[in-house]
Amino acid sequence: MTRTPGELEAALRQIGAERYHILHPFHELLHSGGCTKDQVRAWALNRYCYQRIIPTKDAILLARLDDVEMRREWRQRIVDHDGEIDDHPEGGLRRWLALTDGLGLDRAYVTSMRGALPTTRFACDAYVAFVRDRSELEAIASSLTEMFSPAIISQRVSGMLAHYDFISQDTLRYFGHRLSQAPRDADWALDYVKRKAVTAEQQEAALDALRFKCAMLWSQLDALYHVYVSGYPCPGAWQPGEALVAEAA
Amino acid sequence: MTRTPGELEAALRQIGAERYHILHPFHELLHSGGCTKDQVRAWALNRYCYQRIIPTKDAILLARLDDVEMRREWRQRIVDHDGEIDDHPEGGLRRWLALTDGLGLDRAYVTSMRGALPTTRFACDAYVAFVRDRSELEAIASSLTEMFSPAIISQRVSGMLAHYDFISQDTLRYFGHRLSQAPRDADWALDYVKRKAVTAEQQEAALDALRFKCAMLWSQLDALYHVYVSGYPCPGAWQPGEALVAEAA
Repeated sequence: MTRTPGELEAALRQIGAERYHILHPFHELLHSGGCTKDQVRAWALNRYCYQRIIPTKDAILLARLDDVEMRREWRQRIVDHDGEIDDHPEGGLRRWLALTDGLGLDRAYVTSMRGALPTTRFACDAYVAFVRDRSELEAIASSLTEMFSPAIISQRVSGMLAHYDFISQDTLRYFGHRLSQAPRDADWALDYVKRKAVTAEQQEAALDALRFKCAMLWSQLDALYHVYVSGYPCPGAWQPGEALVAEAA
Repeated sequence: MTRTPGELEAALRQIGAERYHILHPFHELLHSGGCTKDQVRAWALNRYCYQRIIPTKDAILLARLDDVEMRREWRQRIVDHDGEIDDHPEGGLRRWLALTDGLGLDRAYVTSMRGALPTTRFACDAYVAFVRDRSELEAIASSLTEMFSPAIISQRVSGMLAHYDFISQDTLRYFGHRLSQAPRDADWALDYVKRKAVTAEQQEAALDALRFKCAMLWSQLDALYHVYVSGYPCPGAWQPGEALVAEAA
């Protein structure tokens, strides 16, 4: 079945309504104040791996784009995460490290990704491989979780500020910037997908790309929940107490 | 620090003693009779994905080997999993499907891997990528979990036969064959690794390859436990009741 552009958008939004990680029990716990400080540390430490691969997957797609206008558009995403050449303003990856710093995690340990859960690494690597190996349409469609991110960011930021005394507006500054960046990127990508996915096969591929992306985000929170909330062992993963530099005030 | 071949073997065995999935709570549950039939189905359905990529990763390594003797040795692994050309005897993949058949799972559903947990797919894909992208030494060292498999297979087979009336010697025939195949393969690979990993750097790479492999096996059981034992939702994954063809006797 071939969808109109409007029907395709509705089908994409439906995937978000059913599969985006705003529905995950770990998100619920995090924004409602149910996490311990160590659980928030585990989340920030693991999510660094995801932050880390975003400019990588964007650079891979940049290298695949033929059109100079598209490359200029897509390059902005790398600037957003890596920062301007002169580091003013700082990029998203630095802002994420402000959060892990604020949680008292050793920065070299965080960036080494040694203590991250293997499932986190596998999910992030799957995203890089997806953007490398699939069509341009699928690679761009997989970014469409940004359509749903303002809602989860708002919940996360207001909930975390309200419930955790070890979290501040400053250490969460990554998300403030994403609130303006993500909708701009999502608008562009959604317009592209609606214009380019015209056959039934292309539309299914775009929908599957978004399902894949939701699954890779969900998989990361599953692993976090299993090990740091349910409390099952994971050999080699970060243990509470490890790699702390100082107790944040 | 450079190890003697004997010290390297001891270090490899120590990794197994600390990280092999014989230590995982899901294995404990499975062989002790603590699983429901649906949990055994979820395990067999997901593990099909792992079985499926074994001949693929072996073919990738086969294509990378320069030496004809090594290629003949490694080719046997593909025969073991895919079967002889005339299908006598059948290969390991067919034997695995005898198990999922015996559990009443629809074969086309199993082989489509549609209902598998995303984490399972990401872990399996990570193994294929590892064998493709790392050195020959690391690719071969990552197979060394076979040193530890006779112990887990023995526990699994005797425990499952004793505790589950829906499991028979015939549906578990995959494991009987692995009890002779795995030690032969492991002996060859261990001898290769002990001969080729001579510098400290090579030895660390071999040890890390085995740690990686243990983590990809562990990650799969974590996901199974989280969703099918702890009972958390996973959008798109197999649900008990789905894709059953007939109740096994």
